[in-house]
Amino acid sequence: MDFGKYVRTVPDFPKKGILFYDLMPLFGSSEGFPRLIETIAESLPTKTLAHVAGIEARGFIVGAALANRLGIGFVPIRKKGKLPGAVRELSYALEYGQDTIAIQDGAIGKGARVLLVDDLLATGGTAKAALDLLEQVGADVLETVFVAELIGLGGRERLAGRKIRSLLTYHVSE
Amino acid sequence: MDFGKYVRTVPDFPKKGILFYDLMPLFGSSEGFPRLIETIAESLPTKTLAHVAGIEARGFIVGAALANRLGIGFVPIRKKGKLPGAVRELSYALEYGQDTIAIQDGAIGKGARVLLVDDLLATGGTAKAALDLLEQVGADVLETVFVAELIGLGGRERLAGRKIRSLLTYHVSE
Repeated sequence: MDFGKYVRTVPDFPKKGILFYDLMPLFGSSEGFPRLIETIAESLPTKTLAHVAGIEARGFIVGAALANRLGIGFVPIRKKGKLPGAVRELSYALEYGQDTIAIQDGAIGKGARVLLVDDLLATGGTAKAALDLLEQVGADVLETVFVAELIGLGGRERLAGRKIRSLLTYHVSE
Repeated sequence: MDFGKYVRTVPDFPKKGILFYDLMPLFGSSEGFPRLIETIAESLPTKTLAHVAGIEARGFIVGAALANRLGIGFVPIRKKGKLPGAVRELSYALEYGQDTIAIQDGAIGKGARVLLVDDLLATGGTAKAALDLLEQVGADVLETVFVAELIGLGGRERLAGRKIRSLLTYHVSE
């Protein structure tokens, strides 16, 4: 299925000069969304997974749907301050300043096999931080799946050594 | 299945004096989460739905999983400024100040049958705003499903006249 036909670009979002790849029409489609999740599920390694982990907030949409398809639980990775109880946090550099993500203590057992999911790979900063955080809590991350990847922003390079995969790719210039 | 055994309370989150009902252990469980979604799916009216709509961000987890189970698309309702392109916004009063939610133009066709999903019903302010917003774009909202409901905070009263349902209920004092 050509999932790309459901993707649209929106200029100057979230700020001027950025061409945003909007996957919402794909997620909203009753033809596209079930097939997207099925396509990801069929392409996964046959090893049994303990959880799907997804990155706030669009990663929740793909990740929770995929977790349901696989019959397993979904674990969120959120911005600092959004998860109750004891958490493990990790700060990472942005172009200007820094951001902090968190995961709940005990959400993932040591050695548990996890699939990380996010909607879009661009610079890879948040994805790398999420992978580092998952490794810090002892997760065995089998693979990271992105629905779309913007090639030319350094994401794949930043995630070198990690097993990553994208269903759609777009060539963009920095 | 006793879904309540996966729910924990966290005192003083997100601010002092609030006892937070944390559903993440339920969503993260490979026993609990698939059964939760199955239980909701089996209880729905048999009418064909066009979309599941979910409220940012925890509503994405339940809503996207349920959409996948039903084989339909998922449409997000987000905080202002988070959705690209043309949107319809709706502002509503909070205890102090106000908040604004948005839905993308064209995400839901006029007359399309929609199920609204969120994790928790407390005061019902955001849920009422989401229902008003869905009605404004012409959606036919069949029902609103919450995983948990805190009784005693006025949520059910605020949503009077709307068809709502909760899987778990907790009596709390204001």
